[in-house]
Amino acid sequence: MRVDVIPVPIAGFGKELNERTAVVIDVLRATTTIITALTNGCQGIIPVLDADEAGEMARRLGTDCLLGGERHGLRIEGFQLGNSPLEYTANAVGGRRLVFTTTNGTRAIRGVASARLVVIAGFANLQAVAAHLKQTGRDVVIVCSGSDGSFSLEDATCAGALVHALEPEDLGDAAVMARILYRHAARRLASFVGGSEHGQYLKSIGLGEDVRFCTRQDWTAMVPVYQEGRIAGLPQAQ
Amino acid sequence: MRVDVIPVPIAGFGKELNERTAVVIDVLRATTTIITALTNGCQGIIPVLDADEAGEMARRLGTDCLLGGERHGLRIEGFQLGNSPLEYTANAVGGRRLVFTTTNGTRAIRGVASARLVVIAGFANLQAVAAHLKQTGRDVVIVCSGSDGSFSLEDATCAGALVHALEPEDLGDAAVMARILYRHAARRLASFVGGSEHGQYLKSIGLGEDVRFCTRQDWTAMVPVYQEGRIAGLPQAQ
Repeated sequence: MRVDVIPVPIAGFGKELNERTAVVIDVLRATTTIITALTNGCQGIIPVLDADEAGEMARRLGTDCLLGGERHGLRIEGFQLGNSPLEYTANAVGGRRLVFTTTNGTRAIRGVASARLVVIAGFANLQAVAAHLKQTGRDVVIVCSGSDGSFSLEDATCAGALVHALEPEDLGDAAVMARILYRHAARRLASFVGGSEHGQYLKSIGLGEDVRFCTRQDWTAMVPVYQEGRIAGLPQAQ
Repeated sequence: MRVDVIPVPIAGFGKELNERTAVVIDVLRATTTIITALTNGCQGIIPVLDADEAGEMARRLGTDCLLGGERHGLRIEGFQLGNSPLEYTANAVGGRRLVFTTTNGTRAIRGVASARLVVIAGFANLQAVAAHLKQTGRDVVIVCSGSDGSFSLEDATCAGALVHALEPEDLGDAAVMARILYRHAARRLASFVGGSEHGQYLKSIGLGEDVRFCTRQDWTAMVPVYQEGRIAGLPQAQ
């Protein structure tokens, strides 16, 4: 198995993804929120690029549908939910569908739609994702969502945790880098991620609890996959 | 002082560079070759984007002018020199001007032309560059040239060595990452850089000696700067 990491968001992928599994990571907080929502019974998440597309999609889907997402870390006006995983309780999202838009994460997910399979990962489901990837045996591209087009420490560190778990025989340079980062930070993930630029920003707007939650490891076996415009949990049998 | 690292080449910079010093790194091998050529008495280097521009520039500059550069690691047909720093001896380049084009390095140099000052760095001149940057006190953006648009381990590691030497009080996420890489690899730079994807490629085409040379640290006080289309050594007095 070969594993590559894309450490900084790129505009789009071409055919290089065709036969590979793409894993999208936005630790703070989009992919952690998606994993949490699905674990708590959300019936499916439609990632969209902006609030306009979200509104249109929600109207098409009907009244059981929730709107969630953020800009500058804060809930979008008129949306029921923001981008804090702590909001996505069973009470809030159980049995409901969600239209979701965030600055970096949903954009990264849409950008890898051409991959054979798209998996959503975070520290929350890392071992479950690793087990699934090992089972398929396909080459993997881990895409870090980053922050407004720039490198983000927390996504690369989480990518490195996945590389570490996969133990691939063939690694690209960025996968080597990410694994070194993870091994450097493994014993103090919460403080390391909290010290990242976006971690500091979230703490500065009162969302330190989110940062801590997003570094909690392997509390769910949920493996969200993105297919035909919709994110849902992988059936356990697959 | 704030230090940012651009770990993956980007298409171009806007006004964010205006008041900062840009440092360009292409350890394997363009910036190491530039540093070597200037240390050995080369009278100035004109970085150009391709062989056509190189030919045109050489015709304009006249007969004392040398053509150097590579594609796929190999000397360009009709050029006197390739991209091996070992070719750029005092005998070959002393007193001569050089028109130079490489796949990643010269492109990265041209891309940061809007910066207040552009400095060329590698392991060869790291402490000299650090001393100069500390003296100016300006914020710094370290640009990794990468490899065909992708992250390269050797450039990020060298960027990290510079961050380590600068001891800035304010670091971007990628600068934190690069410093961790450098500290991880510091005691075995030659083997770490030799294990990178481009290091392995160069060894596979018989250029292992170049890889070792490019990881030799601080053997020159040469600080090349790019100004008005030309790279030359910073006068010692400045």
